[in-house]
Amino acid sequence: MTDLTLVGAGLIGCSFAAAARKADLFQHISAVEPDPAAAERALALGHVDAVVEQPAADAPVLLACPSNRVVAWLGRLEAHSAPVFDVASVKGALLAELEAGGGHRPAGFVPCHPIAGRERSGPDAADPELFRERLVIITPTPDTDPTATATVVKFWQALGATVEEMDPTEHDRVYARTSHLPHLLAFTYLLGIESEHLHHSGGGFRDFSRIGASDPDMWTAIFDLNRDALLEVTAKFQAHLNDFIAAIESRDVAACERLIAEARARRLGLDGD
Amino acid sequence: MTDLTLVGAGLIGCSFAAAARKADLFQHISAVEPDPAAAERALALGHVDAVVEQPAADAPVLLACPSNRVVAWLGRLEAHSAPVFDVASVKGALLAELEAGGGHRPAGFVPCHPIAGRERSGPDAADPELFRERLVIITPTPDTDPTATATVVKFWQALGATVEEMDPTEHDRVYARTSHLPHLLAFTYLLGIESEHLHHSGGGFRDFSRIGASDPDMWTAIFDLNRDALLEVTAKFQAHLNDFIAAIESRDVAACERLIAEARARRLGLDGD
Repeated sequence: MTDLTLVGAGLIGCSFAAAARKADLFQHISAVEPDPAAAERALALGHVDAVVEQPAADAPVLLACPSNRVVAWLGRLEAHSAPVFDVASVKGALLAELEAGGGHRPAGFVPCHPIAGRERSGPDAADPELFRERLVIITPTPDTDPTATATVVKFWQALGATVEEMDPTEHDRVYARTSHLPHLLAFTYLLGIESEHLHHSGGGFRDFSRIGASDPDMWTAIFDLNRDALLEVTAKFQAHLNDFIAAIESRDVAACERLIAEARARRLGLDGD
Repeated sequence: MTDLTLVGAGLIGCSFAAAARKADLFQHISAVEPDPAAAERALALGHVDAVVEQPAADAPVLLACPSNRVVAWLGRLEAHSAPVFDVASVKGALLAELEAGGGHRPAGFVPCHPIAGRERSGPDAADPELFRERLVIITPTPDTDPTATATVVKFWQALGATVEEMDPTEHDRVYARTSHLPHLLAFTYLLGIESEHLHHSGGGFRDFSRIGASDPDMWTAIFDLNRDALLEVTAKFQAHLNDFIAAIESRDVAACERLIAEARARRLGLDGD
């Protein structure tokens, strides 16, 4: 058993730490956390044993910081000998930025994206069951150390997650559609909401706007990093919306019903929920 | 105690019938239902006692048909003496269409909109608790019979709902924003979904697309009837989306973060869920 250092003691870092404790994965868990209030809560709640300035020399490092700080941390940890893994929601674009900056990273860097989260953030929202029965996408490249990959895969599996490998560019394309665009649309939708609307929030509003309460700092970083794939799927969304508007404006109810029926059919592959 | 006739034995009609039975509101419940399969299920499940061709002469009538058939039914029931109430999600535009066609309606017509529903439809999805602790908006006009209004309000209250009065035009404007636009956006979003995406459906996708499984016939009618208010809020949505796209394209992270923070603040009036 070894130690672990979290870089970032937020929802994801502290949930990983809490889950790892239950699974008895590490002897000692430390955290690098620039926000003193978050550091104090992570300690007080027992998610971490110590707040430190630098990751422990030979311990695995979980980079649970906002995705726009991952590349800088990889450079800083270039000489690190143990596995280093991130949780950023963007993978191909992150690796491209890494290469563009000279490719400075530790030999044991394993790119990861756990498909888990919630709107609340910080150590108080942490949940040891956050990764159970969830998917974790890994996007190793040809020069990723297979031993480090195997170690990191075992960590996620010990937390109850299913690990799947994807091509990093394909990952960004798929998650632009299934996660980043829904968040962008939910935020956009909320910009039109006035307080008078909140009383009348049945009929889809709550579902639709729940994810709009997510963290601005985190989502700004994701939108910026995955901008190419996100702008592409957003342009397609706008084209489909214009089809709908044309049908509604011209009172072409047959066209409108066709569009809705097609939309509905595309969702039917999902389990009822 | 009197009888009740449903026009339309779908989710809303059968849920009302089932709830009314539990509350012991009516002696006998009949239904006009053009779809033989739905009529048979409504009978078999005991939601209704009889399937009929015409509403019973002196009994209240619940128009639980798609909203684009309400005006025709009001004309057909012009001489009806008992209260007649609908459940259409559009009110001002429906009353305007009614007036434009000569205003043929029974004296006891009370326009209603229960804020309750689900994606599944038909008698099998009916739930006697569907209206409990839900809002029912009524939009009586100056010539609505106050006695009929009082009777219909008591029906909804007996089912556990809270009844509130709104101006019909204001109703359409508010629900275009809180219900019709979210459905339009969910349908539009789903048009871009391919089967490969369904496996990667964490991170907002499920929430966002759940309402996209709603009934095409019903939603086509709502979009067509409330087209003016819907097109207006959709144009505002497009303008806000263009603000976001401009910030992401120009990599103006400060602007992007400001937009997300504003969106989030607008949702904070809602209870956590």
